[in-house]
Amino acid sequence: MKILIRDVLLDGTVTDIFMDNGVILQISPSCARTADKVIDGRGKAALPSLINGHTHAAMTLFRGFADDMPLKNWLEEKIWVLESKLTEDDVYQGARLACLEMIKNGVTVFNDMYWHWEATARAAADMKIRGFISAVFIDMFDEGTGREQIALNRDLYALSKDYEPYATFTFGPHALYTVSKASLEWMRDFAAEKDILIHMHLAETADEDRFLQDKYNMSPVEFLDSIGLFSQRYIGCHGCQLGKADVEILKERDARLVHVPVSNLKLAVGKVFPHRLIEEAGIPYCFGTDGCASNNHLDVLETMKFASLLAKFHTGDPTMLPARQTLEMATRTAADIFRLGPWVIAEGLSPDIILIDLNRPEFVPNFDIYSDMVYAANGSAVDTVICMGEVLMENRVVPGEEEIMMRASEAAHALVKR
Amino acid sequence: MKILIRDVLLDGTVTDIFMDNGVILQISPSCARTADKVIDGRGKAALPSLINGHTHAAMTLFRGFADDMPLKNWLEEKIWVLESKLTEDDVYQGARLACLEMIKNGVTVFNDMYWHWEATARAAADMKIRGFISAVFIDMFDEGTGREQIALNRDLYALSKDYEPYATFTFGPHALYTVSKASLEWMRDFAAEKDILIHMHLAETADEDRFLQDKYNMSPVEFLDSIGLFSQRYIGCHGCQLGKADVEILKERDARLVHVPVSNLKLAVGKVFPHRLIEEAGIPYCFGTDGCASNNHLDVLETMKFASLLAKFHTGDPTMLPARQTLEMATRTAADIFRLGPWVIAEGLSPDIILIDLNRPEFVPNFDIYSDMVYAANGSAVDTVICMGEVLMENRVVPGEEEIMMRASEAAHALVKR
Repeated sequence: MKILIRDVLLDGTVTDIFMDNGVILQISPSCARTADKVIDGRGKAALPSLINGHTHAAMTLFRGFADDMPLKNWLEEKIWVLESKLTEDDVYQGARLACLEMIKNGVTVFNDMYWHWEATARAAADMKIRGFISAVFIDMFDEGTGREQIALNRDLYALSKDYEPYATFTFGPHALYTVSKASLEWMRDFAAEKDILIHMHLAETADEDRFLQDKYNMSPVEFLDSIGLFSQRYIGCHGCQLGKADVEILKERDARLVHVPVSNLKLAVGKVFPHRLIEEAGIPYCFGTDGCASNNHLDVLETMKFASLLAKFHTGDPTMLPARQTLEMATRTAADIFRLGPWVIAEGLSPDIILIDLNRPEFVPNFDIYSDMVYAANGSAVDTVICMGEVLMENRVVPGEEEIMMRASEAAHALVKR
Repeated sequence: MKILIRDVLLDGTVTDIFMDNGVILQISPSCARTADKVIDGRGKAALPSLINGHTHAAMTLFRGFADDMPLKNWLEEKIWVLESKLTEDDVYQGARLACLEMIKNGVTVFNDMYWHWEATARAAADMKIRGFISAVFIDMFDEGTGREQIALNRDLYALSKDYEPYATFTFGPHALYTVSKASLEWMRDFAAEKDILIHMHLAETADEDRFLQDKYNMSPVEFLDSIGLFSQRYIGCHGCQLGKADVEILKERDARLVHVPVSNLKLAVGKVFPHRLIEEAGIPYCFGTDGCASNNHLDVLETMKFASLLAKFHTGDPTMLPARQTLEMATRTAADIFRLGPWVIAEGLSPDIILIDLNRPEFVPNFDIYSDMVYAANGSAVDTVICMGEVLMENRVVPGEEEIMMRASEAAHALVKR
């Protein structure tokens, strides 16, 4: 599909952008190309789309079902009870709602970990966005369960080819307190052989740290390094408990991180993401929302505001995570982590593109688009979303959104009553 | 004006709401009253409007002009330079933009402190919302300046009667490091005589604490108590540095506080609002956005999410500031602080009312409206705003908004070039 965006603000200049099949072929004023679709970009700014580094998409179904509870009761009495009853169709409906919500917030790429892998893959494909999707790999140190999980993950990897380019299979070893060393080693080898990303909760809570000390007498990072799990393919989420030695190991192995600030605050995980250490080491990281049971909104711009302001507060330095850097991490750095190519709007490149409606009070006087995006705006400022050469949203309307919301709502309310 | 809202969700039930001249006269399904204005409430929830406890409205003009800078350079090189050039019309344009932005975010009451008092009062009156407006009272311990400021504030108090019910005059002693004891004592007495609220920055930074220790050998709160400044009329903003003894004094004097979390993070003020101490003492407090140079969005819902999540994280207790309490503090408690009467949608009462559009992904599956409002939504979910019996926004449209944004933008860009 040939798309021509007319008179849009790009890096401070009004221009046209012409793309064919997702590739930007021309950026210039008064572009003379003919297109299948012409978008009026007046009063809008073009930016590369946002990337959500960590979520559990189908947990939209649990939004608002259980909040303000101690972590243990929340998990044991509420979340796990519902999860045990989830069907494949529930996950599809919840993940489809999540995709809709992400599109509405300018997100076209998400990194997911959840049950019923294929349901989430199907949702991503139906909504035409890019899901990096892992099954939750949990064996609870049981050999038989480990073998089953390995067989399942092999099958899903094979199956995932049917869902390209929308779904990309990744490994999702849940955490070090739920996955055995043998299973991790299998994932390490299979991931290296097939070049698969590994998506894992890492150094999120003090309990996890204690578990590792008791079991292996090492920190989570030291243990993973001891079995050679780190590489550019490794994406560790949360990282609140990381110490200096951990960060040095991650740096040396070229591993990547995802900062999940809203969830960390809501669940009161105790420690702060070590911004300064990670920034000084130069470890690439991006931002994740987490699932809707612990955030409860898949708005990456909101998450970026939290991340930038928390970095300033906790380092005591208001120059930390400045606006432009924050936006670039959520786009360019994130795209590098997920190996999507240069996520920059330039001729010859193929980032997904969002158009921001500047005709809103929070963009007045608009001295600095980066500052306005990170500190003033939220996802509701996104007007248009283009992913892999298709227009997914225009004037904030996603075709079929009413039905998606209705079906997800029905699934969630039925699940609670089941 | 008689307004009838049809088929709106209120406290979990679909009903009609009939109001006349801002007073709710009937809440029942299929209400038979005739109205000047009928609003279709289907798919929407009715809530009392939000209250912004601390802002500097006209600073919308500075949004995005200077971020990510150390506090001292930011103030001295950027903000004060612009402020020294501000005209009365600049402040009017900036404050009018702020009022528009607040209406768009469901806010109908704001507590302001800024230069050119009358410009902000005029903006509130033109936009038909409720401003509690103070002039910035600064004398820098100079007797002559103190006398001038006192004369000015007397005049503004008299003038303020012309702007009722939109503007209410309050005192705005800037902070203890900028206002003399003699001026504070005069405000104390005049406020008691005329029943005027006192709006002040209190215990925001460690520098302020040090200044007070050096000058008076007391904490800010101890000093203010020593001159009898506290009462129900006193509203202290920020409060990050408050200790246990301070909180006990505030409680005993029945003073009130405003928590300003986003600004505190962005400016890296060093210490955290002492949630637990203040909650245990039972000091009434609400939430403020601060001005757009240090937030940069007048979205009280966003501020509430920050407040609730920070309270959980910093106390290590995910049950702190639960959603319903947070929403009630931003409405009912805030209205009590500003003496607006019971801010509850019930027959015989006259809160301002907002309608929330539930037909958005972040309100699916809508298990709990309070949770969805605080943890999932932001101000863009507000569809309709009714203030003092007038409809200020419907379907997210505020009449004249294009012109307001254009004029504010022109004023801001001209100011920077001046």
